Amino acid sequence: MNEVRTSRRSGGRAGRAAARASSAPPTPPFLTRLTRPYEIVGEEGLAIIEENADAILEQVGIDFREHPRSLELLADAGCDVDGERVRFPRGLCRSIIREHAPPTYTQHARNPARNVQIGGDATVFAPNYGSPFVFDQDEGRRYGTIEDFRNFVKLAYASPHLHHSGGTVCEPVDVPVNKRHLDMVYAHLKYSDKAFMGSVTAGERAADSIAMARIAFGGDLRDADGVERTVMSSLINASSPLVWDETMLDAAETYAAANQACIISPFILAGAMAPTTAAGVAAQTLAEAMAGMTFCQLVRPGAPVVLGSFASSMSMATGAPTFGTPEPAVVLYTVAALARRLGVPFRSGGSLTASKLPDAQAAYESAATLLPTVMAGVNFVLHAAGWMEGGLAIGYEKFMLDADQLGMMAKFAQGLDITSNGQAIDALREHRPGEHFLGTAHTLANFETAFYRSPLADNASFEQWLDEGSLTAADRANGAWKRALAEYEAPPIDDAVDAELVDYVARRKSEMPDEIG
Amino acid sequence: MNEVRTSRRSGGRAGRAAARASSAPPTPPFLTRLTRPYEIVGEEGLAIIEENADAILEQVGIDFREHPRSLELLADAGCDVDGERVRFPRGLCRSIIREHAPPTYTQHARNPARNVQIGGDATVFAPNYGSPFVFDQDEGRRYGTIEDFRNFVKLAYASPHLHHSGGTVCEPVDVPVNKRHLDMVYAHLKYSDKAFMGSVTAGERAADSIAMARIAFGGDLRDADGVERTVMSSLINASSPLVWDETMLDAAETYAAANQACIISPFILAGAMAPTTAAGVAAQTLAEAMAGMTFCQLVRPGAPVVLGSFASSMSMATGAPTFGTPEPAVVLYTVAALARRLGVPFRSGGSLTASKLPDAQAAYESAATLLPTVMAGVNFVLHAAGWMEGGLAIGYEKFMLDADQLGMMAKFAQGLDITSNGQAIDALREHRPGEHFLGTAHTLANFETAFYRSPLADNASFEQWLDEGSLTAADRANGAWKRALAEYEAPPIDDAVDAELVDYVARRKSEMPDEIG
Repeated sequence: MNEVRTSRRSGGRAGRAAARASSAPPTPPFLTRLTRPYEIVGEEGLAIIEENADAILEQVGIDFREHPRSLELLADAGCDVDGERVRFPRGLCRSIIREHAPPTYTQHARNPARNVQIGGDATVFAPNYGSPFVFDQDEGRRYGTIEDFRNFVKLAYASPHLHHSGGTVCEPVDVPVNKRHLDMVYAHLKYSDKAFMGSVTAGERAADSIAMARIAFGGDLRDADGVERTVMSSLINASSPLVWDETMLDAAETYAAANQACIISPFILAGAMAPTTAAGVAAQTLAEAMAGMTFCQLVRPGAPVVLGSFASSMSMATGAPTFGTPEPAVVLYTVAALARRLGVPFRSGGSLTASKLPDAQAAYESAATLLPTVMAGVNFVLHAAGWMEGGLAIGYEKFMLDADQLGMMAKFAQGLDITSNGQAIDALREHRPGEHFLGTAHTLANFETAFYRSPLADNASFEQWLDEGSLTAADRANGAWKRALAEYEAPPIDDAVDAELVDYVARRKSEMPDEIG
Repeated sequence: MNEVRTSRRSGGRAGRAAARASSAPPTPPFLTRLTRPYEIVGEEGLAIIEENADAILEQVGIDFREHPRSLELLADAGCDVDGERVRFPRGLCRSIIREHAPPTYTQHARNPARNVQIGGDATVFAPNYGSPFVFDQDEGRRYGTIEDFRNFVKLAYASPHLHHSGGTVCEPVDVPVNKRHLDMVYAHLKYSDKAFMGSVTAGERAADSIAMARIAFGGDLRDADGVERTVMSSLINASSPLVWDETMLDAAETYAAANQACIISPFILAGAMAPTTAAGVAAQTLAEAMAGMTFCQLVRPGAPVVLGSFASSMSMATGAPTFGTPEPAVVLYTVAALARRLGVPFRSGGSLTASKLPDAQAAYESAATLLPTVMAGVNFVLHAAGWMEGGLAIGYEKFMLDADQLGMMAKFAQGLDITSNGQAIDALREHRPGEHFLGTAHTLANFETAFYRSPLADNASFEQWLDEGSLTAADRANGAWKRALAEYEAPPIDDAVDAELVDYVARRKSEMPDEIG
């Protein structure tokens, strides 16, 4: 994010802060956590959940619907295929995944300095995904457009705290449904040079995404060894409970065959698509995800896969999904540990809320999702910024507020500095009781980097805050996103490459009549 | 908290939720965590910080100012006393504390069903402390009054998520400064039957607090063994760096002598009252707290003490304290581990923010303090509800919003249920792919308790939310506190006891001319 003023006036306090921010060191392309993950349950509990997942796979089975190719591959691998129902011999999924799926992989970005590691001690923050609506304080809630889409790509590009450009940051509802993917992939490639996600709404759209990525990456994705570089990580959602459908299987197959990463994500509203209890949700999530990852490994052994988990609780009064509640946090910690044991990267969490506004509810719920996300050691964090209204909307102000929190998380994940400078023992020894530390050598030496500096939080006196217009956090964020868009500068792109991408989009669009979603 | 409507209309969805909430089981008097604390640093790092604390105590020393009695006690215990500077032989504090200070204690409440455990796996949530201002959405920010004070005591009493009535929930600025403590202690005893905190602003005010508690607890605090029951836990703040002052030492001495608990709390704005770095803050906190706790143990071996830590970061642009930032969270986890190693209860955390409004900033910052508070296993949580504006104000809406989050934390701290019911393996086994779980026996059996039910979060559809008035979370909280006060019913108190308390307050007030603060 570019420097943001905390008031409507320029100069003064905010101006000085801005001057300092501009001299701050560049942030790394992804977050490397130095903190260990929080373990909510011991080995024994995890082993029980694994047993239960195995029992589901063996005894109940998973449906692979309207996708004969997957049934063929799974039967050949030794599964019991009965119609579309696939039952897995005990341990088969785990052994295939452990043998072939990489524990970490690099997703290449158009700008190699922005390549991200997915897995291990890395955490990658990606924006909101999939919302048909957008929200801003000036215009309220409305359908998303391709202009909104480009705006959010620009905001994610401009933020040092988002490592990834995401995928369907909002639905560009003004573009025909069968052509949106072309404009979306183009926007990621044109307006950002961060890593991104491909289209999953049809196999041929996945193929378009790959074709466009190939153009953007110099015409060939293969590295010196002839292996395709992974340049997309795309979201493959299960139809929980226990179903993989044709659309997602087509997309997954297309991506895996090209060595592109699939984020295999059961999407569970506990109580509706799974039992109400966290251990039940975790077992089902593991079963569904292992089935999907196994399919990818059968398509192409070694293709990158990510174990995904999206779990929300529900209002037992109305059946509505709820976010930022304690139960999904328990699921998150549990499935994160299961993914570590399985040896694959993990996707979950984000900045989730049911709130319709960037208000206190939005912030409490988002924090109650994001902190566990970081503490659990999630590797790929979709919906890290912008999510509102249970995912139905992405908010401009919410995006800026969330991005600020991501910056805080990155600082927290550096953990306790126990170096000699961190101990500050000389400073402590040279100070007499009652003497303050403001002007000491240690304080001056650590001045620039001691504390995370929020561009949006107001820490002024009450009187100063009044004087500056009594702004809410959302008011300040409103100014911040406008300023970030006004100051946005596109990353360089080769003119010939850009022209080829534009041609590809135009050609593909001309080949299809518009479909209205 | 009593049931709160999520809309201005009665009946309907909210009415059904209310009917269910009323059949919920009563909440326990304090939170027993089943989750393990998060350890941010290993044994080796903790040992280094302990070494550094010992070096401060031995080489720099701590000032005990204008309090000859403490110097006498410390010299007798083997300390090197030079003027008001006290240097501690290496290991002396630790050995005195380990030998005498209880690792956990029971704070008795006027209603024995509300006794709280301080220490071990218990967490006790107490409200905001010490704010001169109050805030509500209708009237904005203004000085606190004794009526506000009583209101917050009532709100804390009415909330199932606050275990403790706290102390100076706000400053009753309309009462003379030398008489406030009498009205405050009376309010805690009259309008609540939860445990509370005594006055610390002078030794004689501590003595008044004890005298009034004695009346409320039947005229004698002694148990069957002749030992005074601990009925107050009171806040003893250091004048960091490395100073204990007369007022706090007087209060601590008075309380410790009567076997009342002292929460020995260094209060550190990092960069000003200590080095900027977390390991430096932790070492200094430990040194200051060990010195204070040692003093209490010398006054009365075995008197309950709590190791307190209040640490905030600062804006390096303006010097203002900042809250909900990552660095204090690192300090919190570190000092929590040091307290566990020392074997004493730990106080820290809360729902802290610099925001002037119950807005997104307030919520993000509060959550970024409260989640680490619970994950670190803090035993006594002051400022758990209501804190705004860096502690200068307590907010009515903020109080209700925070209390809701405390309820979520209590649920989270139950961890993963890996019982047979938690595993839900039968439910998982009997379900075919694609079948939902809404009507299954397992879901129905777990329906009432499966998910935390927020009385304030809005999870309705956008249209329904519009129809209900497009309320913010703070708007809903505004309705909630008014309703809670309207529905408040005082706990029973013996008429004779009440009359004796009223007489005590009147007599003591008549003995002193008013002092204006």
